[in-house]
Amino acid sequence: MNGAQSLIRTLVDSGVEVCFANPGTSEMHFVAALDAVPEMRGVLALFEGVVTGAADGYARMADRPAATLLHLGPGMANGMANLHNARRAHTPMINVIGDHALYHKGFDALLESDIDALNGWTHGWNRTSTDTAAVGGDAAEAVAAAMTAPGRIANLVLPADVSWGDGGVAAAPVAPPAASTVDAERVADIAAVVGSGESTVVLLGAGVTRERGLLAASRIAAATGVKVFVETFPARLERGVGLPNIDRLGYLAEQVQWQLTDVKHLVLVGAKAPVSFFAYPGKVSDLTPEGCRVHTLAALGEDTADALDQLAAVVAADTEPVLQQPSRPELPVGELTPQNWALVLGALLPEGAIISDEANTSGLMIPMTTAGTPRHDLLTLTGGAIGQGLPVGVGAAVACPDRPVICLQSDGSAMYTISALWTMARENLNVTTIVLNNRAYAILRMELMRVGAEGAGPVANSLLDLAKPDLDFVKIAEGMGVPATRATTAEELAEQFSRALAEPGPHLIEAMVPSLI
Amino acid sequence: MNGAQSLIRTLVDSGVEVCFANPGTSEMHFVAALDAVPEMRGVLALFEGVVTGAADGYARMADRPAATLLHLGPGMANGMANLHNARRAHTPMINVIGDHALYHKGFDALLESDIDALNGWTHGWNRTSTDTAAVGGDAAEAVAAAMTAPGRIANLVLPADVSWGDGGVAAAPVAPPAASTVDAERVADIAAVVGSGESTVVLLGAGVTRERGLLAASRIAAATGVKVFVETFPARLERGVGLPNIDRLGYLAEQVQWQLTDVKHLVLVGAKAPVSFFAYPGKVSDLTPEGCRVHTLAALGEDTADALDQLAAVVAADTEPVLQQPSRPELPVGELTPQNWALVLGALLPEGAIISDEANTSGLMIPMTTAGTPRHDLLTLTGGAIGQGLPVGVGAAVACPDRPVICLQSDGSAMYTISALWTMARENLNVTTIVLNNRAYAILRMELMRVGAEGAGPVANSLLDLAKPDLDFVKIAEGMGVPATRATTAEELAEQFSRALAEPGPHLIEAMVPSLI
Repeated sequence: MNGAQSLIRTLVDSGVEVCFANPGTSEMHFVAALDAVPEMRGVLALFEGVVTGAADGYARMADRPAATLLHLGPGMANGMANLHNARRAHTPMINVIGDHALYHKGFDALLESDIDALNGWTHGWNRTSTDTAAVGGDAAEAVAAAMTAPGRIANLVLPADVSWGDGGVAAAPVAPPAASTVDAERVADIAAVVGSGESTVVLLGAGVTRERGLLAASRIAAATGVKVFVETFPARLERGVGLPNIDRLGYLAEQVQWQLTDVKHLVLVGAKAPVSFFAYPGKVSDLTPEGCRVHTLAALGEDTADALDQLAAVVAADTEPVLQQPSRPELPVGELTPQNWALVLGALLPEGAIISDEANTSGLMIPMTTAGTPRHDLLTLTGGAIGQGLPVGVGAAVACPDRPVICLQSDGSAMYTISALWTMARENLNVTTIVLNNRAYAILRMELMRVGAEGAGPVANSLLDLAKPDLDFVKIAEGMGVPATRATTAEELAEQFSRALAEPGPHLIEAMVPSLI
Repeated sequence: MNGAQSLIRTLVDSGVEVCFANPGTSEMHFVAALDAVPEMRGVLALFEGVVTGAADGYARMADRPAATLLHLGPGMANGMANLHNARRAHTPMINVIGDHALYHKGFDALLESDIDALNGWTHGWNRTSTDTAAVGGDAAEAVAAAMTAPGRIANLVLPADVSWGDGGVAAAPVAPPAASTVDAERVADIAAVVGSGESTVVLLGAGVTRERGLLAASRIAAATGVKVFVETFPARLERGVGLPNIDRLGYLAEQVQWQLTDVKHLVLVGAKAPVSFFAYPGKVSDLTPEGCRVHTLAALGEDTADALDQLAAVVAADTEPVLQQPSRPELPVGELTPQNWALVLGALLPEGAIISDEANTSGLMIPMTTAGTPRHDLLTLTGGAIGQGLPVGVGAAVACPDRPVICLQSDGSAMYTISALWTMARENLNVTTIVLNNRAYAILRMELMRVGAEGAGPVANSLLDLAKPDLDFVKIAEGMGVPATRATTAEELAEQFSRALAEPGPHLIEAMVPSLI
């Protein structure tokens, strides 16, 4: 057994059964070893940003990590923006980064670079395998590191000679350490806060934006009168009929300030106190209201869901959660608008849908129009690095082949990782992509005003304009093997969306939605 | 004058007149400032890998740097693979990396990341502007740093509050230090080597792959009988009728070993001694023959062209260079092959063409079929990180609007930065892209065999296959506003190529060329 075979065997034995890959020469032994370990599914992507984004989406839905295969430093670099998003999502992931043979590195061949510097940027676990016999053990530790609460990125550098060397040994799985449990004393302290009668907000983050956490939070709110919010960009939010419907904090600082008006206590559960997404001249960065005290029920790395259950047991033992009742919008008619396309979504969203939301300014209405739809998952842009939506949709579809995946995708952001469409076609994934084509970086038009940039004229505005030439997403999708249609009215969107959902495999709908601004 | 305005004004005064940009909120004041300094041309790209690759192509042709505008760490990350190529090309470039306001960084807002780690990866000059009044001076120093021989990447981090702050001061240009001159003693030592009568190769790299260096090298070869090669991947090689035709070292180690058979002396001029591109089991990494002595006439950072002229003056004072005579292939007929498409190129290549070559396995015949064509420039994949070809073509066309740019682009590599096509359309650039669609990562099929990976079966081979589904580059190009056609025969390619060259603006030809292997 060579090093590559021992690595893949160990990953499979540790529960890692998918590898999103964009390999090169230094990874050829890894690629060849896939034939020796058929339990590992290799999924090819045409760009590393798709690879890492797909691994992120997969883990968010599968609750276990995928592996990636990346080609030396430049391949790693291409995947890093979506690693940034995955880091912010606390997604477990094992990156296998092929490198030159150890004896070759000193020659500074053209593709040589400082991979350690790139690994460090992901703030996770890093190791270079330097011995074929140890590769299996390194892989088992990488999985455990990735699965350590709240989840993180594990980078395993695999030099080519370590990969091709003989003497690989598959290692037994290593159990990640259990998340530490919050003690009763802290729970009692927070119970006193939420029971104080003073205006209090509980903010839900990692580990408590799914059914268990939402139910506990809803009971706490019902019993004590506190308000509950979900952090602005949760990795995975369970929503829909039969679940508590808990609003997210807004993207704009003004929204958050309104949501937190006069709040005296902010209780964090796997979340950080809110800050402005960007700085703006003359505006504050820290969005915690003046005089508001910040308390932590459970920090990242602690068992947040258990802590919330404990709190509910103390303050809401006999209280039922408030559950969302069915409520769908009517199907609208007429030309598409930034509002009505989301009504179509709400009217037709299928049971069990997984939404990858990178609709940006076009998506402001989604939370409202989909609140009363059948139960679904929402995956958001966790790190703010655009180009996440389509790759995350790929990964979610690989993780959940029986569920409909819906990518809500703004036009500008789509172009960063557009080749994800090809992987959808190659793997025949059940992904329906709705591209909201408003022919602009509309969010930047808004931000250009918000930052108070004076003197912006035709040159500045032209740099935010995607209409010269227009992008034709129908042709782009067809060029990558994905059937596509264009909708300019709500009726067309409804008809095309229904048809796409009814047919297996990927589809793309280009929705010609005017820009909000 | 705010910081952004002082920055742009200083760049323009220092000779930097193009900024390739993919901005975000933290860069909005920079974008707005473009209206205040109309001498700076802002060129929008839809992905940062296009931005950095275009800046690379621009500088290779303009002999002065472009600026880029990148959005925080993730935006920088997206551009890094082509920064790697630019680093290997010794391309001068000024990256303006927008960052959060200094007072905002401590809040760890979602897009916060360790930009310093990314900057370090480029092995260039790095600075963060921390004071609005100093931004202009920082920019002038950045340009000087980028222009310091042999050329390098200068990363200037621009926090948003430093950008929007008042009190910016445009700075006067700073002259880069002159490259150090090689002294007569070293020239005499090398003259003794090339005059020794022993088998000698002179290897040309940075600064000596254009007319001046090639003429000197040809005279030296003619006078002394030494062989001359150009390094495998020169940043810019001038070729064609009236210039010496000097072969490049091969990509494969076996080729280089054949080219250097029995060589006793290797003389480096702005180049490094050749090493294998990758390591292969049982094969050597160092391609300098055993017993061959390595001499350096001029190292990187020294005035390589002057050193070669000095050497020519000593050993070849009365010798004329050997110049390429006109010689074009006949136009071939029949189905396209990996060979005959390059004959079409050689038969029709226009005067003054700039070739951006990322044809990879499909491009093996290009050096032979184009040697006797009119004078042209060849820009190669300097760092081995694929996805360079189309962006470099964008930059070359911006630098040289009156010359025809021809991108020879393999299919797999094209998909990394495919949105470069949109920028070609937006700027109406005279770029003709020939995509060699062989429906595979053909180079990896070859490398899978060359690395001796055993056990590779259908799974491994499927990861090198781009045919399920087929990529339709005609539709993809049209979707981005570039007129496109498909050629399956040599006649069609010739007709379409002639037509594309005759019409202004961008065109794409999808050439259906079978895979070599």
